[in-house]
Amino acid sequence: MNIGLDLSRSGLGEEEILSLRGKLQAAERDLHKGEEGFNGWMTLPEEYDREEYYRILEAADRIKKSCDVLIVIGIGGSYLGAKACIEMMSHSFSAVIEESKRKEPMILFAGQNISPNYHRELLEAVEDKDVCLCVISKSGTTAEPNIAFAVLKEMMYEKYGRKEAGKRIFVVTDRSKGTLREEADREGYESFVIPEDIGGRYSVLTPAGLLPIAAAGIDIEDIIKGAADGAEEFRGTDLNTNICCRYAAARYLLDKAGKKIEIYECYEPKMYFFGEWLKQLFGESEGKEGKGIFPALLQFTTDLHSMGQFIQEGSQIFFETVINIEKTEKDIRIPDTAAPAFRGKTMHQVNMAVVKGVAEAHADDKIPVIFIDISEISPYLFGKMVYFFERSCALKGYMMGINPFDQPGVEKYKAFMKEKLNE
Amino acid sequence: MNIGLDLSRSGLGEEEILSLRGKLQAAERDLHKGEEGFNGWMTLPEEYDREEYYRILEAADRIKKSCDVLIVIGIGGSYLGAKACIEMMSHSFSAVIEESKRKEPMILFAGQNISPNYHRELLEAVEDKDVCLCVISKSGTTAEPNIAFAVLKEMMYEKYGRKEAGKRIFVVTDRSKGTLREEADREGYESFVIPEDIGGRYSVLTPAGLLPIAAAGIDIEDIIKGAADGAEEFRGTDLNTNICCRYAAARYLLDKAGKKIEIYECYEPKMYFFGEWLKQLFGESEGKEGKGIFPALLQFTTDLHSMGQFIQEGSQIFFETVINIEKTEKDIRIPDTAAPAFRGKTMHQVNMAVVKGVAEAHADDKIPVIFIDISEISPYLFGKMVYFFERSCALKGYMMGINPFDQPGVEKYKAFMKEKLNE
Repeated sequence: MNIGLDLSRSGLGEEEILSLRGKLQAAERDLHKGEEGFNGWMTLPEEYDREEYYRILEAADRIKKSCDVLIVIGIGGSYLGAKACIEMMSHSFSAVIEESKRKEPMILFAGQNISPNYHRELLEAVEDKDVCLCVISKSGTTAEPNIAFAVLKEMMYEKYGRKEAGKRIFVVTDRSKGTLREEADREGYESFVIPEDIGGRYSVLTPAGLLPIAAAGIDIEDIIKGAADGAEEFRGTDLNTNICCRYAAARYLLDKAGKKIEIYECYEPKMYFFGEWLKQLFGESEGKEGKGIFPALLQFTTDLHSMGQFIQEGSQIFFETVINIEKTEKDIRIPDTAAPAFRGKTMHQVNMAVVKGVAEAHADDKIPVIFIDISEISPYLFGKMVYFFERSCALKGYMMGINPFDQPGVEKYKAFMKEKLNE
Repeated sequence: MNIGLDLSRSGLGEEEILSLRGKLQAAERDLHKGEEGFNGWMTLPEEYDREEYYRILEAADRIKKSCDVLIVIGIGGSYLGAKACIEMMSHSFSAVIEESKRKEPMILFAGQNISPNYHRELLEAVEDKDVCLCVISKSGTTAEPNIAFAVLKEMMYEKYGRKEAGKRIFVVTDRSKGTLREEADREGYESFVIPEDIGGRYSVLTPAGLLPIAAAGIDIEDIIKGAADGAEEFRGTDLNTNICCRYAAARYLLDKAGKKIEIYECYEPKMYFFGEWLKQLFGESEGKEGKGIFPALLQFTTDLHSMGQFIQEGSQIFFETVINIEKTEKDIRIPDTAAPAFRGKTMHQVNMAVVKGVAEAHADDKIPVIFIDISEISPYLFGKMVYFFERSCALKGYMMGINPFDQPGVEKYKAFMKEKLNE
């Protein structure tokens, strides 16, 4: 079970990559200096809080036993990591299969938008279900989760009464600060901590990700093991062998060469939200000071039938990064009523033929294609991928001369929004 | 109920827009010449086949009465139009609400990818359900729907026997050509026609879109009415008043000014797949001869917490197009337990404050923002939007000197794929 990196279709030469040695080493020094105060994620897989970890497992067990639906309230980093992992590891139609066949609670999300349609219909959907809430917010005052929690708490009080509802509400927030911490302490909600030195987009291996993931029945022990192995394997700056550094170097060079969009592509629909997590990680880390590669996401083969034309022949301002899942547990033999080209093959074989065919068709037109090969879908490899991308992103950020851990631009619209709210 | 266009934050001057008069008129002449043979969509809302239209309504009724789940098999243009409309008009949690409360069959999709996980789990999900199939493919030989149909037909035969299964299979394909037409005629499946002079990405108002949309319980009469009103309203080339032409002109100017990405943004999750439909329409129409604006899609406010930083401060190679839904049918009063700024307001009011706040924050940093204002979500306005975007896209294509109706680049990867399949 491993992650591989293939730059053979990227158009980049080995010398070019190795020439970045000095820049990469400087970036790594910046990363280890940790002056921005947000690199708690680096040692997290080895130094996490064991006592809290066992409380997560216990709380997840209680959630599984006491509800049909767990509603996870959060946005941004307090949403995408858990969503990515749960989508990746769960049944594609978990909402459709019969309740009696379902072993784990259904996980639904709220407070990741402010749509009244969405939240009104969520309330309708859970009317006859037993519900728990998991509220994730470092400050407690971010608009979307704050509003959604107020709305859903009202529903919980009506359904269970304030006391019983309190036992069904789980909170992940700051250790000591903020309105959500105050409320959790006052009401006696079981609560977990997002460490101060870990920013939202790097928080999936904190309780912000682990509690909902564990409640969905996914093995978080394996996830942490994968991340810890990643921390070990991707350490250092050897550009000959370290794929985490090589990916950072390749992105740096393609950026310099004027490739201003990175298109993440995956041929397995379960990986879609992992792509969304990547968009947040790279977009929010790099997009500052007028710089940064714009991260886009396509789901193949679906989007070959929408964006395939553009990629092959449109404005060549992008490169592609394929997240390629090599093996599949469930396969299907294609029946003989299919077209002759597909008979006797399995769907996975055809899917892999498209992966290779598309890469060669694009490379033939000099479109840079990076392959990240993931041997299979598993919690272990989810953890390892998270560490791979987090470290590679931070290194590339320092290489391009920006602080990969801040997000000064997100305050601006909030100020304008407040004005509008007061009007 | 109407569509509005607001270019006041686009950074474009009125003279610039009006200066494109000659170019636009030439583009409209090209469009009406119809030399590419693919502009049947232009007159479709007024000249559709009435007899077939009534057969669609009857078939949809039969589907509604005879199954719990309708599986729609199709990809690209034979998928996105129906998916966009159904997501827009349906309950956000239609799979979660109790079966007894559901009036229409659940609509699931297949053959929009070749993932064995997806299709294996789809088979598991419908094991205990009554199923109908709707297969949409002009040729019948496109890999994904061809394979999915073979797999699902096997399941249908086992479940119902060949004869009864045949009554549950509905086909949308070419009038006289292709393997799917042959099979439909041979097996006696009820079948509908995709006109020869309408390409996939322009086909949502043909039976390819209308049959699944009607089966989902949506009023297709209203959709066609909206499109017909659009055909009337958006006719001609008056750049002072015709918003369809003004949108084409604005995109043309921003493209020339080096804005190489158009980010579609919507604050209502139900509109997500309408955005995917836009990506196909514009990406596949424009992305050729090394040209074209790269269409990207963000769902706000969700993605403000992932890409908001990049938009405000990252590489300024994009402009934004907000699809702004002005009214909502379902609203929620925010309880007093929410933060003081939100108390006494409704979720829709807060959502609209963000829409305005974000637009002003971005315009303040000279980021071009186009607003397309949609007064509400309705089948009528879906039809009108479809016509608006289809015509605007075709005009912009001719203005930039490409054929907006072909897709020569999609053949290349298929040739490479065939090689890989033979290996």
